[in-house]
Amino acid sequence: MKELDFFFYPKTVAVIGASREPGKVGHAIMQNFTSEKFEGKVFPVNPKAEEIMGFKAHSSIAKIKERIDLAVICTPSATVPKVFLECCKKKVPAVIIISAGFEEIGNKELTNSLRALIKKYPKTRVVGPNCLGTLNCANGVDTLFLPQYRLERPEAGVVSFISQSGALGSAVLDWSSMNEYGIAKFASYGNAMDVDESDLLEYLANDLQTKVIVMYIEGVKNGKKFFETAKKYAKKKPIIVLKGGTTEAGTKAVASHTGSMAGSMAAYDAVFKQTGLIKANNLLELFDYARVLSRLPPAKGKRVQIITDGGGYGVVTADEVINHGLELAKMSEKSIAEIRKVVPPYVILRNPMDLTGDANNERYQVAVEAALKDKNVDMVIAIVLYQVPSLDSDVVETIRALNEKSSKPMIVISVGGAYSEVHKRALEREGVVNFSYPDDAVKALKALVEFYAEK
Amino acid sequence: MKELDFFFYPKTVAVIGASREPGKVGHAIMQNFTSEKFEGKVFPVNPKAEEIMGFKAHSSIAKIKERIDLAVICTPSATVPKVFLECCKKKVPAVIIISAGFEEIGNKELTNSLRALIKKYPKTRVVGPNCLGTLNCANGVDTLFLPQYRLERPEAGVVSFISQSGALGSAVLDWSSMNEYGIAKFASYGNAMDVDESDLLEYLANDLQTKVIVMYIEGVKNGKKFFETAKKYAKKKPIIVLKGGTTEAGTKAVASHTGSMAGSMAAYDAVFKQTGLIKANNLLELFDYARVLSRLPPAKGKRVQIITDGGGYGVVTADEVINHGLELAKMSEKSIAEIRKVVPPYVILRNPMDLTGDANNERYQVAVEAALKDKNVDMVIAIVLYQVPSLDSDVVETIRALNEKSSKPMIVISVGGAYSEVHKRALEREGVVNFSYPDDAVKALKALVEFYAEK
Repeated sequence: MKELDFFFYPKTVAVIGASREPGKVGHAIMQNFTSEKFEGKVFPVNPKAEEIMGFKAHSSIAKIKERIDLAVICTPSATVPKVFLECCKKKVPAVIIISAGFEEIGNKELTNSLRALIKKYPKTRVVGPNCLGTLNCANGVDTLFLPQYRLERPEAGVVSFISQSGALGSAVLDWSSMNEYGIAKFASYGNAMDVDESDLLEYLANDLQTKVIVMYIEGVKNGKKFFETAKKYAKKKPIIVLKGGTTEAGTKAVASHTGSMAGSMAAYDAVFKQTGLIKANNLLELFDYARVLSRLPPAKGKRVQIITDGGGYGVVTADEVINHGLELAKMSEKSIAEIRKVVPPYVILRNPMDLTGDANNERYQVAVEAALKDKNVDMVIAIVLYQVPSLDSDVVETIRALNEKSSKPMIVISVGGAYSEVHKRALEREGVVNFSYPDDAVKALKALVEFYAEK
Repeated sequence: MKELDFFFYPKTVAVIGASREPGKVGHAIMQNFTSEKFEGKVFPVNPKAEEIMGFKAHSSIAKIKERIDLAVICTPSATVPKVFLECCKKKVPAVIIISAGFEEIGNKELTNSLRALIKKYPKTRVVGPNCLGTLNCANGVDTLFLPQYRLERPEAGVVSFISQSGALGSAVLDWSSMNEYGIAKFASYGNAMDVDESDLLEYLANDLQTKVIVMYIEGVKNGKKFFETAKKYAKKKPIIVLKGGTTEAGTKAVASHTGSMAGSMAAYDAVFKQTGLIKANNLLELFDYARVLSRLPPAKGKRVQIITDGGGYGVVTADEVINHGLELAKMSEKSIAEIRKVVPPYVILRNPMDLTGDANNERYQVAVEAALKDKNVDMVIAIVLYQVPSLDSDVVETIRALNEKSSKPMIVISVGGAYSEVHKRALEREGVVNFSYPDDAVKALKALVEFYAEK
């Protein structure tokens, strides 16, 4: 068993500061561990209660007879060193300290006393303080104190997410749920007094459930360690990073936010370049890149074939392809001849290929199939305006089947409003990667190309 | 009455090529003009029918006794010159030719014969051929041949949209409906054989219902005319332009798409600079800019105050503010002191101002109000993570009221998933401009600042 496994796979969990009172942090966390999804055992710790949510409460963790894999501390900050010491003495291997009120508000004395204990008991690993803790979407391990109705948990997926900011992390999880993007594991590590971003990165790089790692970091605790960890893993598994605090103003905000140093952006850019970390410039890129890297096959080159039923979208997408440094594929004469046999003479068989406003499912079938098997094409972008009357909803099945058997990356730009949205959702559920706008789509394909080009 | 008014305010409309058969273009257009919203009279023209949808059909437009304000032609291309000539002889002031099959597919003979007629009868103005025509969301004038269930029509608003591409235009209208963004008037002008982008631009610049104009253009018919029209109006009314065909590849696609020349991007960039047209780099920017420019008061400067309840989002937004050339405001000591009276000591009263994860409605009330009245602040960005348990849904009312009485631009970044989306929609309906991501929000504010700075 790996050292940090207890943070994601505990069989026994003590909630220190468990509460019967809805709205309290210790109540929300108890709710998570008493849900059906979590199959382990939960032990509420609260000196003022006999039982909480039907579970016997203990006055301290020392009173629990069983071995405890994970202790979650959500008591007031002043009490943290005392209850943490009890965890260490009980040899709990993993402790998550949710409580805030340490270096981030300048409380040096409390910070130092906790730090001394962490140093003294190195076998007890600590996530936090001032964090949300961990979430494993596959088994219900969930220390997030935001109730589910306010913050939906994503379904189990293959993308794991490390966030220095709890608020940003939780909002992104919520947004992932809404978009039906699965998450494997999530960790918010707050002040990183012991376990830091590099430890979590290494753990997830070796985690078989995680295909892609996304990170939001403001600063790193140990630059050299982060660099070496990134270098070791970034070419094996896609690691996409959004760095907060890239400007002087942002850096100052970071200092008051998590008490860490943001470091110069030039230094980070060098790290990205030398390690192979994938840089995201904003939140949307972070998850767009994760979607293509977790769900599409490798790109063998940068030649893109665009197939559309709306000329204007073809034009705009061709511009994006060129502007982002990808290339427009030139399909072979043989492929073009095959398509020509089936489509009317006014269909424009170039790149972008314009199936025109009376396109039907058959034209998409023939054109996309020919492009996917053409040796001059590395990737296919199919733009679909579902509005055209000649196109019926079976185009979803056409595209699903083509995507399923394709060994090349293929994405769909689903254009329009509510009617399109229905088709877009259907395609997403069938495993087809969709975008709403050409620029987002092309940027994501570029990230895919670059990851495989550097291998 | 202005010359192009008949395209948007006809009282009598002839649909030449009207059809009883669902799925046909002439059927969809008849459906539009027989809907309750259109209060004028419609005259189907079809030599093979006695009546269509309960209206008497005429064998040709010449047989209609009444004066006709607008004729919509959707017959096969070969018949267009003949029926167009009939329109001219009847002195119809406005004709929309939906039919395709002219210069865009290289049909020179047909193109020339139509062009000769247009020249011969200059009092009959023509939109098209190869277009969707016009839409006036306020009165149901609607020549779009895509049925409403596939392409929802937006509600009446104050943003008008000119699109060279019909497909792109229609998809954007559909997307606007889904997002509840209103549209005043829409025109797709296709091959622009007579009325071109400059004529429509001038018409909408003088249209009292239109506060902001957005354009998608691939090329312009007459560069000098476009330049002069843009220069005349761009500083009076915001005109936001997305140019398709900005790369060599895109330019080639344009040539086969609408048969027009795209022109070099450098030339266009010079036009943007010299005229004050606002450049959008993609579809999302086009409408984000339109939203802020149509709904927010003028920005007096570029100093932004960020107020958040999630530190990470504050950091990322501060970065975006700096990266896009705006500035972080420095609130006066008096304002800070006022806020300090009400909020706990750990609230960070800088910029970004972090109300922290236990923020409540009162903190937003006090902080946003102080920022809006501070003379060192030009604009306010309120970032709201609705997930935090201390915040209840009344924050919508708090923000609505602050926004209503504000004379400074204020926007909200609504962060998260389904729970946030509910609040975001509520705020939008109450007139508050919302964004989901910091970068989109800041780019839009920048467009606002630049428009007013150049005046």
